[in-house]
Amino acid sequence: MPVPDAPVTGAERSPDPAGGPARPSRLDPAVAARLRRTPDGLVAAVVRQHDSGEVLMVAWMDDEALHRTLTTGRATYWSRSRNEYWVKGATSGHHQYVRSVALDCDGDALLVSVDQVGPACHTGQRTCFHTDLPVTGVAGPGDDGRVRA
Amino acid sequence: MPVPDAPVTGAERSPDPAGGPARPSRLDPAVAARLRRTPDGLVAAVVRQHDSGEVLMVAWMDDEALHRTLTTGRATYWSRSRNEYWVKGATSGHHQYVRSVALDCDGDALLVSVDQVGPACHTGQRTCFHTDLPVTGVAGPGDDGRVRA
Repeated sequence: MPVPDAPVTGAERSPDPAGGPARPSRLDPAVAARLRRTPDGLVAAVVRQHDSGEVLMVAWMDDEALHRTLTTGRATYWSRSRNEYWVKGATSGHHQYVRSVALDCDGDALLVSVDQVGPACHTGQRTCFHTDLPVTGVAGPGDDGRVRA
Repeated sequence: MPVPDAPVTGAERSPDPAGGPARPSRLDPAVAARLRRTPDGLVAAVVRQHDSGEVLMVAWMDDEALHRTLTTGRATYWSRSRNEYWVKGATSGHHQYVRSVALDCDGDALLVSVDQVGPACHTGQRTCFHTDLPVTGVAGPGDDGRVRA
């Protein structure tokens, strides 16, 4: 894959099966170099309410969405279903004002601390995590990984 | 990896560009039908400490990793770098005992509440989110999305 000599991230590259940037971006190349993306060029963004710590949602960012989030202070994502950028709250009014962004140790996830206006979920609930799955296994200290009957 | 008997989800399917299951799994088909996967068949698993709510890490689950997590009570992931399942703590001793698992509204992320033994991060830090990125844009109530100079 040819890489131009200018600090352009992802420009004129096609999607990389190893998870390179999928679209051109103005993201700081030093940050871009740390990202480890899905095959479609995305990292997971975990969004939490900055003061309560409540986990509100997970969305997806490509390099440019991260750039816009960092430089505008408004959480901006890549929509996998609509294939376009979206600024959270632009249509719903449920804005996310960004307080801080942290990258994880292996570069494939972001923790975005926001001040969430209203519900984060399009269903009207505060968080998107409202379907509990049944945990049937029980493990704890002293258990070495065996499944209890 | 052959998995005997039904119910098998995704058995003998090749990876689906639309994000179907990438490997055979014993996951409850009703749950599997709700998952919306990356092109390599994964969903993001956000892991938090069950009592403090602290976000510890993000890892990746395919259908079978989710099945094992739910049925053993030990957080189990798919390693994108090693292409294998890993049980958190199996080698480090930093176990994650699962208290609850919630699926988000669009099926592409899980919130796994655990009792984390020791540090979650392989660097020895409690959480994996220890690299702050600079937020240069400031937005807040009353701001309609314009970037402040």
